[in-house]
Amino acid sequence: MERTLIGDLAGKKGEEVLIQGWVSVRRDQGKMVFFDFRDRSGVVQGVTLPSSPAIETAKEVRNEYVVSVEGKVNARPEKNVNAKVQNGNIELEITGLTVLAKAEPLPFDMSLDGYNLDLTTELDHRALALRHPRLQAIFKVQAVIIDSFREYMKSQDFFEFQAPAIVPATAEGGAEVFKVDYFDKQAYLSQSPQLYKQIVMTAFERVFSVNKIFRAEPSSTTRHLTEVVSLDAEMSFINSWCDVRDMSEATVRFILEQVQAKCAKELELLQATVPTMIAETPTLSLTEALAKLGAPADKDLNPEQERTLCEIIKEETGSDFVYVYGYPTRHKPFYVYPNPENPEFNEGMDLLCRGVEWLSGGRRINDYAQLMEHVQKWGMDPKKIEMFLEAFRYGAPPEGGFAFGAERMTMQILDLKNIREATMFPRDMNRIDGSLNTEE
Amino acid sequence: MERTLIGDLAGKKGEEVLIQGWVSVRRDQGKMVFFDFRDRSGVVQGVTLPSSPAIETAKEVRNEYVVSVEGKVNARPEKNVNAKVQNGNIELEITGLTVLAKAEPLPFDMSLDGYNLDLTTELDHRALALRHPRLQAIFKVQAVIIDSFREYMKSQDFFEFQAPAIVPATAEGGAEVFKVDYFDKQAYLSQSPQLYKQIVMTAFERVFSVNKIFRAEPSSTTRHLTEVVSLDAEMSFINSWCDVRDMSEATVRFILEQVQAKCAKELELLQATVPTMIAETPTLSLTEALAKLGAPADKDLNPEQERTLCEIIKEETGSDFVYVYGYPTRHKPFYVYPNPENPEFNEGMDLLCRGVEWLSGGRRINDYAQLMEHVQKWGMDPKKIEMFLEAFRYGAPPEGGFAFGAERMTMQILDLKNIREATMFPRDMNRIDGSLNTEE
Repeated sequence: MERTLIGDLAGKKGEEVLIQGWVSVRRDQGKMVFFDFRDRSGVVQGVTLPSSPAIETAKEVRNEYVVSVEGKVNARPEKNVNAKVQNGNIELEITGLTVLAKAEPLPFDMSLDGYNLDLTTELDHRALALRHPRLQAIFKVQAVIIDSFREYMKSQDFFEFQAPAIVPATAEGGAEVFKVDYFDKQAYLSQSPQLYKQIVMTAFERVFSVNKIFRAEPSSTTRHLTEVVSLDAEMSFINSWCDVRDMSEATVRFILEQVQAKCAKELELLQATVPTMIAETPTLSLTEALAKLGAPADKDLNPEQERTLCEIIKEETGSDFVYVYGYPTRHKPFYVYPNPENPEFNEGMDLLCRGVEWLSGGRRINDYAQLMEHVQKWGMDPKKIEMFLEAFRYGAPPEGGFAFGAERMTMQILDLKNIREATMFPRDMNRIDGSLNTEE
Repeated sequence: MERTLIGDLAGKKGEEVLIQGWVSVRRDQGKMVFFDFRDRSGVVQGVTLPSSPAIETAKEVRNEYVVSVEGKVNARPEKNVNAKVQNGNIELEITGLTVLAKAEPLPFDMSLDGYNLDLTTELDHRALALRHPRLQAIFKVQAVIIDSFREYMKSQDFFEFQAPAIVPATAEGGAEVFKVDYFDKQAYLSQSPQLYKQIVMTAFERVFSVNKIFRAEPSSTTRHLTEVVSLDAEMSFINSWCDVRDMSEATVRFILEQVQAKCAKELELLQATVPTMIAETPTLSLTEALAKLGAPADKDLNPEQERTLCEIIKEETGSDFVYVYGYPTRHKPFYVYPNPENPEFNEGMDLLCRGVEWLSGGRRINDYAQLMEHVQKWGMDPKKIEMFLEAFRYGAPPEGGFAFGAERMTMQILDLKNIREATMFPRDMNRIDGSLNTEE
């Protein structure tokens, strides 16, 4: 018999079917054995009656066994209907049960409500924990975020390129970059595709990439990872940094809409609310933002100021989001475009939401002479960024871009407490899969 | 005025428009100046008449200048129509010309026909060379390959996950793995997402990833890179390895169809022919393949045998593709599934095309006891793959998968001579962007 996905059973009442999946729950009631079966499409309840040829096997099967099940799809009696769960109005009457793979007794409770691991234990058992609906929901939302980013970029005529992970010594280097033994030489892991996306922009106008970036920050907070997925975009022929802001706003809006539309079940399970983006996201200069906070001029907002600003904006406008632009030029990278009317401040921007930064970007310098001037002022070695400089030496249009991390956006949308929850295989200074501190 | 993309000009005959882009070609004919302008959507010819207010600027503009051009879209006189080029029946009569960015004189001929760099020079000038239509065509085809892979996988209900780049010491290690200084410890760059995709498969059934893999092979051939894009898939509840073969065949078929449909212009420019996949790709065991070649039994096909086999199959069936399966078990990784009827041979497979391997995969061991037996036989340390083993300890369905490199497939479809041509920023033992041997 052909396999039927559990998600398709509702349309097969009265039919004989074959399903394949895992045993999520097994309840042995003496004469009868009840099961919850699960496959990638959902869950269904099954029952093995005393008269079933499968009753012997049913007695042996345990949680997480992989099984092939033949049975008849029965409508449940009215009193047993459970409208709150998938397939809550049907039940599979099991006529055949084959074990495809056994499972050892589980090291912890994997049931929907019983699952309650501290994060360290969960990460120590990531392979098994990934089967839990809560974790599956998180990574489904993340997959939708990443895929929606690509979908929106493509709809706006952005070209996807593959940014490199291994990079030579560059101006972006420093203490927080990982070193790679590269044959008898030294290479590094990319901290950002920034210079590459600007290069590719000069050839393809509008470009994006989904790529890994690496940060060797010796911090082990709830927000630090050493390897993250960066969603990057760069666009040319802009009229001002506002075009970049608008594109980033439209991108985030699309992602939120897609998460809302495609992940309703997951959002409910995780009790998460997608943040509100109003028609026009409030936009303040750093100076304006600090004034609103009654704070003195500074080079950036501190975390507490970010939180307070978001609260004020939410109260004033209903928006969970706020753009802040115009940072002191000398405190940002050399490629950020200075405001022509007030070159002490640049045209870089951050998008804050619910108290934290979600995305940053802005306009970049496209004029070669101005770029070289900054390279000098910032004390950089032009030879180390020669490929980047070449792109601008031969004609580069006015341009800008933005970037955000997939894990951080997942964490923020779902209001998770730790970025490791939003990362399938998180890497930090103490962990790569297993703990680094307990290995021999 | 709003910007019009050059690709939309054909529908605007008689209208005043504004275009923005680069100067590909400039021909100063004394009184008049002709241009070829280019943006992401294509090319168009422009002419500055002696009476145009733009004539002074037109005299100053050089190749690769970035310009904003106002003009009138005129139909070309019949005798000047060139049906072979985009917009060959129109011409832009330039009424305004603004320089957005200047370009230094080009270090080599960037014209469509005049461009003729050896690969080393081209890679030394990758940033500029990326603007050439030939290179743009290569990377457009590559983007379609990668995107079509994702599209097909999603259509078959595969879940996309992000495989890690930084990995702990694993059984897959060895001499050809890059070491990373990881705080005061040692980590490595992933050579394959194999174990991770198998883990995620046990939670999501069908999974895929597009991710970087790294190989520290000290080889500098036309086929070696240290960093490549791997397209990986893993599927469960298979009946035999043939389900994996069928899925991989359907995936490659879809990709080829998409490249054919979406890249007709690029294929023509590159004079490339998409290989022929017949209704059922010929499939031979290694033993059968060697017999067909009149060669003695061996553990694999050598490169010459791969070429000859492909030629024979092509002649016999018209197929550019052939699957070879059933390799000696002990010469392949521990996770490959041995043929139950003849355990000396496994159920691994390779897809060959035009003389070289395109893709490999096969069925994997899903039974935990059998897996542990192999771990022991292969002399591996189970502690180092504990996360992987956990996934199988608690019930894993019959499964298999496949993988292929985006650069290699690009190279093969386009019949390029060197894999570096199919890689935007190729890394090898002598080069990361610039040459590693000439740096101080």
